[in-house]
Amino acid sequence: MTDQGPIAPKALLFDVQGTATDFHSVVCAEAERISAGRHPGVDWVGFVDRWRGEYFSALRAATVDRDNWTTVHSVYRDALERLLPEFGVTDLTEAEREDLALAWQRLVPWPDTVPGLTRLKTRYTLATLSNADVAAVVRISRRGGMPWDAIFTAEMAGAFKPDPIVYRMAATYLGLAPSEIMMVASHKYDIRAAAALGFRTAFVARPLEFGAYGTVDVAYEDEFDINACDFLDLADQLGC
Amino acid sequence: MTDQGPIAPKALLFDVQGTATDFHSVVCAEAERISAGRHPGVDWVGFVDRWRGEYFSALRAATVDRDNWTTVHSVYRDALERLLPEFGVTDLTEAEREDLALAWQRLVPWPDTVPGLTRLKTRYTLATLSNADVAAVVRISRRGGMPWDAIFTAEMAGAFKPDPIVYRMAATYLGLAPSEIMMVASHKYDIRAAAALGFRTAFVARPLEFGAYGTVDVAYEDEFDINACDFLDLADQLGC
Repeated sequence: MTDQGPIAPKALLFDVQGTATDFHSVVCAEAERISAGRHPGVDWVGFVDRWRGEYFSALRAATVDRDNWTTVHSVYRDALERLLPEFGVTDLTEAEREDLALAWQRLVPWPDTVPGLTRLKTRYTLATLSNADVAAVVRISRRGGMPWDAIFTAEMAGAFKPDPIVYRMAATYLGLAPSEIMMVASHKYDIRAAAALGFRTAFVARPLEFGAYGTVDVAYEDEFDINACDFLDLADQLGC
Repeated sequence: MTDQGPIAPKALLFDVQGTATDFHSVVCAEAERISAGRHPGVDWVGFVDRWRGEYFSALRAATVDRDNWTTVHSVYRDALERLLPEFGVTDLTEAEREDLALAWQRLVPWPDTVPGLTRLKTRYTLATLSNADVAAVVRISRRGGMPWDAIFTAEMAGAFKPDPIVYRMAATYLGLAPSEIMMVASHKYDIRAAAALGFRTAFVARPLEFGAYGTVDVAYEDEFDINACDFLDLADQLGC
């Protein structure tokens, strides 16, 4: 915890795609399932890396507001249409391409996620703060049995993280000051944006975010209030 | 179910104050606790009825949007300041008056609510659609153990029910058509507003909403897709 002393937060906000759930192995497996052996030579791992990269580029470039919203599903879908031909995949049907884009709504919790959240929930209010669509987070959470007290997403704010609007919305909705809330993520840009607004921060290392051979920044940093190796470690450090 | 046949909804939206939770006995008991025998003659039942009436008047009169939001807590608090002197209660401290207004964030589920929701959750996505503040619904739900998949409230829409904006927001966030969603409430104005937009409807009778001697419209109506005596009856009728 920080130099300000061991003042516990009242609520925890969690990133979903990558932090609470594993997208890489799910989306790779879905690509192989849906292409059903028609493209045995395709580098689906590289494909998913590129797809996720296109998603980040689109979110950075997005000029949106609450009345002019771009769904993340449409972002993934548009990027898929561009990427498939690049990887030589030209024979997926419309239904198969839609099914593949919806793989991002079938992400699975990391093995520590549900037991960790269950312990944390005994003491703290738990909510998502995700850039994914509300519908996607609701579906992922129902499928995975993640016991959130509330679902907050960028769509509700009309802006994507790391826009301050998104974090401030969560504080308003929880009726808490930023200092009473801890942002939990495996992505440093996300928790640094929250920290700049006075939120507490927990970094959770997810070395497998891009698969066994992916490159991920998992270095602990003194700037964060907590550095944890998973949600069970986070629960330990938060006294649950 | 309706003449359109037994097409099941995919998601259920629930009113909270009165439908999923009992406010009357909670707020009456809290008024007695906080006034601690200093006002044995006060008609707290009548007081709570008037307080709830003032809340409805304030919501009808509110001209709000997402950037100019009136919290429901402030509505209850302002009405309390007006009503206490009318009932001859002039000696509650500032802290006691705040504590009393926060009684609306300590509502308890009706006895059938949690077991009914638990059965319904096996098949349907469950969310609130409440005029109460997000923070209030989160607190009430955590205290009561209500297993919502999502919390949606008027505050997120920038308008109060029965404004169509509120119901449409929930459909957008769920990624569903109105016909795939059922609005559940004990207040007919609420489900009629949803029905006008194409939502399915379930009326749940709550004869004790205003206490044992209160006047409540609990008559079943053919216009609703379902009429139920409680959430267990609703689960039966929805095949859970």
